[in-house]
Amino acid sequence: MSTVLIDISMSLDGYVTASGSRPDVPMGDGGERLHTWAFGEEDRNRELMANAGALGALIAGRTTYDQSVLWWGADGPTGPARRPLVVVTHEVPTDVPADSVYTFVTGGVEAALVEARRLAGTADVAVMGGAQIAQQFIRAGLVDEISIHVVPVLFGGGKRLFEHLGDQHVVLERPSVVETDSATHLRYRITDKEVD
Amino acid sequence: MSTVLIDISMSLDGYVTASGSRPDVPMGDGGERLHTWAFGEEDRNRELMANAGALGALIAGRTTYDQSVLWWGADGPTGPARRPLVVVTHEVPTDVPADSVYTFVTGGVEAALVEARRLAGTADVAVMGGAQIAQQFIRAGLVDEISIHVVPVLFGGGKRLFEHLGDQHVVLERPSVVETDSATHLRYRITDKEVD
Repeated sequence: MSTVLIDISMSLDGYVTASGSRPDVPMGDGGERLHTWAFGEEDRNRELMANAGALGALIAGRTTYDQSVLWWGADGPTGPARRPLVVVTHEVPTDVPADSVYTFVTGGVEAALVEARRLAGTADVAVMGGAQIAQQFIRAGLVDEISIHVVPVLFGGGKRLFEHLGDQHVVLERPSVVETDSATHLRYRITDKEVD
Repeated sequence: MSTVLIDISMSLDGYVTASGSRPDVPMGDGGERLHTWAFGEEDRNRELMANAGALGALIAGRTTYDQSVLWWGADGPTGPARRPLVVVTHEVPTDVPADSVYTFVTGGVEAALVEARRLAGTADVAVMGGAQIAQQFIRAGLVDEISIHVVPVLFGGGKRLFEHLGDQHVVLERPSVVETDSATHLRYRITDKEVD
């Protein structure tokens, strides 16, 4: 079966948004620093972004969708690669861009994953956030790999990626590491869950 | 002036102890996994530990001292290298090992740093934890570098390293990265504090 991965940018102190997140500043004050690496000129960052285009489908929460759809337009987070994005939501929005890559699923994360796998075929599925959706996937044991882009900043506040996971230890393999100027890219495979 | 660094092992989800920490299990249930890398056979881990011996002095909180002194004995955390350890405490303990490396400072983190610098001469000073002491050093702007040994595990609970830092962003330089089987060693220089 294809791989399901969490793929998200995080400050060294564990935040995926800075504090002060609000509708017109969804990443929080200065939080856009987390995504600078993706728009940089460095070849290795470009390669990492190209890999995103090789994904079969992506999954995001409704808040992430709402905060991003104006920038993404109909093409979604992968731009011209137009990979399908499955949005986990309570209610399907009425004003979706025409001819878009978006699919809305109201049955929770498991149902979203079934739909994303169907759309992805044999290719991988990436959960891009927000934090709550990522946490739901980890808690439900649906994740094979965790890909974290660690950005060299301490935010001191905001929304944490790793929270509400319960006390069960999740053991990871040694990560693959890619260093670039603007982030350290760590990709871990989950080996086992254990209470130790 | 010599460098002041935070030097601490952390789970990928940001914990420096696992949950269930108690006097006879100070690292929490399974928390000793965070320190496995330091006792491994890998050459690069040995080198990293040897670097600890090159430090001029270390600083720890009282709880860390109390939980560790039985294992450390008179030599302290660096073993035969016998680097001085300055302990931040409210009250000087009465039963300190004879001929030990320990100095107790009751004047808070600034006073502890003055004493550690005096003991270190031109060599570097490392703050080894616990989390509260590390946070006090970061908040007070006393830290030049942050050296994190990221261990591939999610604890889901325990004591967080990065907490109570306030909302001011602390910008770090691109880290030096050393990969070993049991941890990813990231060392960051703090470049600037900014509210952005």
